[in-house]
Amino acid sequence: MGDLLAGLRPAARGVPVSGIIDAVNHGRDKPGVIPLWAGEGDLPTPRFIVEVAQKALADGETFYTHQRGIPPLREALAAYHERLYGRPFDPDSFFVTGSGMQAIALALSLTAGAGDEILVPTPTWPNVMGAAFALGARPVPVPMREEDAVWHLVIEDLETALTPATRAIFLNSPANPTGWTATRDKLEQVLAFARKHDLWIIADEIYARFVYGDAPRADSFLDIAERDEKIIYVNTFSKNWAMTGWRMGWIHAPVELKQTIENLIQYSTSGVAPFMQRAGVVALNEGDWFVEHTIARARAGRSVVSSAFEGNNRITYAAPDGAFYAFIKVAGLTNAREAAFRLIDEAKVGTAPGTAFGANGEGFVRICFARSEDSLRDAMGRISAFLTD
Amino acid sequence: MGDLLAGLRPAARGVPVSGIIDAVNHGRDKPGVIPLWAGEGDLPTPRFIVEVAQKALADGETFYTHQRGIPPLREALAAYHERLYGRPFDPDSFFVTGSGMQAIALALSLTAGAGDEILVPTPTWPNVMGAAFALGARPVPVPMREEDAVWHLVIEDLETALTPATRAIFLNSPANPTGWTATRDKLEQVLAFARKHDLWIIADEIYARFVYGDAPRADSFLDIAERDEKIIYVNTFSKNWAMTGWRMGWIHAPVELKQTIENLIQYSTSGVAPFMQRAGVVALNEGDWFVEHTIARARAGRSVVSSAFEGNNRITYAAPDGAFYAFIKVAGLTNAREAAFRLIDEAKVGTAPGTAFGANGEGFVRICFARSEDSLRDAMGRISAFLTD
Repeated sequence: MGDLLAGLRPAARGVPVSGIIDAVNHGRDKPGVIPLWAGEGDLPTPRFIVEVAQKALADGETFYTHQRGIPPLREALAAYHERLYGRPFDPDSFFVTGSGMQAIALALSLTAGAGDEILVPTPTWPNVMGAAFALGARPVPVPMREEDAVWHLVIEDLETALTPATRAIFLNSPANPTGWTATRDKLEQVLAFARKHDLWIIADEIYARFVYGDAPRADSFLDIAERDEKIIYVNTFSKNWAMTGWRMGWIHAPVELKQTIENLIQYSTSGVAPFMQRAGVVALNEGDWFVEHTIARARAGRSVVSSAFEGNNRITYAAPDGAFYAFIKVAGLTNAREAAFRLIDEAKVGTAPGTAFGANGEGFVRICFARSEDSLRDAMGRISAFLTD
Repeated sequence: MGDLLAGLRPAARGVPVSGIIDAVNHGRDKPGVIPLWAGEGDLPTPRFIVEVAQKALADGETFYTHQRGIPPLREALAAYHERLYGRPFDPDSFFVTGSGMQAIALALSLTAGAGDEILVPTPTWPNVMGAAFALGARPVPVPMREEDAVWHLVIEDLETALTPATRAIFLNSPANPTGWTATRDKLEQVLAFARKHDLWIIADEIYARFVYGDAPRADSFLDIAERDEKIIYVNTFSKNWAMTGWRMGWIHAPVELKQTIENLIQYSTSGVAPFMQRAGVVALNEGDWFVEHTIARARAGRSVVSSAFEGNNRITYAAPDGAFYAFIKVAGLTNAREAAFRLIDEAKVGTAPGTAFGANGEGFVRICFARSEDSLRDAMGRISAFLTD
């Protein structure tokens, strides 16, 4: 056994286990656990989307198709972005991927390989680090500053982490797990930093519409960057349209990268099932009402969490500006992984340990609040009781 | 534009276009072209498989699921292998992937990275070379010997190609595009070679059941290797069950690699849609009749091609022992890519140029014969007429 593992490529062998999946695997088959560990809601994919996939299956749309995505889906993506960002987009600047995860992995692989470094503000979704590591690149954590469970990105910290091997910065806003949402001013600072050092930006704005102020969406690099900027946007159908299980996402990138991205798709998964892509078209074109419904539920969930932890003197918590996670700081918590396992076993609530998101997540626990208020109230009661014990 | 491309990771930028997709893209929207360019048949996925996916969609199986594949699918894979190879298999040695292509990419990434070399007998499916190249590894073509359009693998040629950087050998048998099918003796020689030099074998036996002698399947490393051998088997639902468009495959590997492979799946695509996996279960458990039907059609198609080219003095062709391609040698052909494009434009038949499969494919054209006899007869007539002009 040792021999077999020793024979693997070192970076493959050394890729860490996801701390989220670690918790999910611990609790997956345990009855009665309320699952707040993953980044998904409790609604199945809505019927108007499912039915399109069912029909496409019945129609025999089961053959190989365009590597970059079927034209109607790339057109729908362009139209969707035009609605959201108020200017035209070229369908050829969109690339359909087999999950948002694959969009990230491809974006990383476009920009960095063995010996290269990628700056990643932390806490962050562990898969970004894992994917970079698996590619043989070095993900460089840039710890965000935290005070009273509110997080800030300081540009000087990016400057400090920079080396001649730095190729890209991965920026997730609104952020998982912290809810940090970059202001337009902050995005401009990051863009200036990237331009100054000729870095790529991998922009993960998948929670763009999950914001809780008055604006309909978060500020975006799309508002301030040039069209041929060194920015690769990664995105997913998962969150907006309750399609987590589908494994379908997209990349938006300068058209000049078209053939290169098509090649990388070809040599990794060779595209996405056409019957799924048809469903993606209807999600984008006719799904706004569902996205709004989902956001309204997340907003309500956010309130449930805030109320639940108000006055709890073990917990420091600030309702996030964006995304749909509560990243709560628990006084006296020194082993987040153990706490997450105990929450599963004893309190019957699945959470993700803060350490899954970086070393500076120690002492924190992540809760996904994109769920029904009743289920969340139940879960918050269990967590509060557990922490008070 | 130059600047943007220049800023990419060199190996990503340098990944070649697939010569097959090159032809497909040239002809995809041209009416009346008979498509023999890709490795897929003309039957849509059968109804008994489609209906299971439709039902799972209706049942709301649209959430995240097991990264390695749902347990019923890994159990069905174990049972399928037990039927085919006559001994028990551990469900934990199977890993569901988002296409056979992803299975190959993961197997490559388990064994080789920047600076490492992988031996690949050629002609070969171009995606193997492309995937290795995209990972930053160096695929080393090992030209097979050819005489009268019959191909042979010579172990001494592998020995010659070996360097201290060699990590793995990719062996596809029955082979795309040549139809070469390793005898048990040849597999034993390759295994001895790999053991001697401590190499991994990536075994692509996806056409195992498409053989045209008396045996129900091709000889396999599974017949001769130990269970903890350094062999990673890659496979797909595409060919046996007419599921090319689904993008679903699997890896069979030593159980010791379980966590590492789960991690690599997590950080590349994070698994396969559960509603597709349910369909995979029924394909494996209840699909033998359909596989046999598909093989019978391929056998008939193989005869159509043989008859069509008999006595054609421009064409040298040997009916293949396995897989479902005719790899025909055309006298006087010096630019296979141009010929493939002209076949599309002038003869209205889509083929893949031999050069897509390696430099030693020059002068050859690949035809997929997994189609209805009528359509094939029509296509063969067009090709013969074109070549006689």
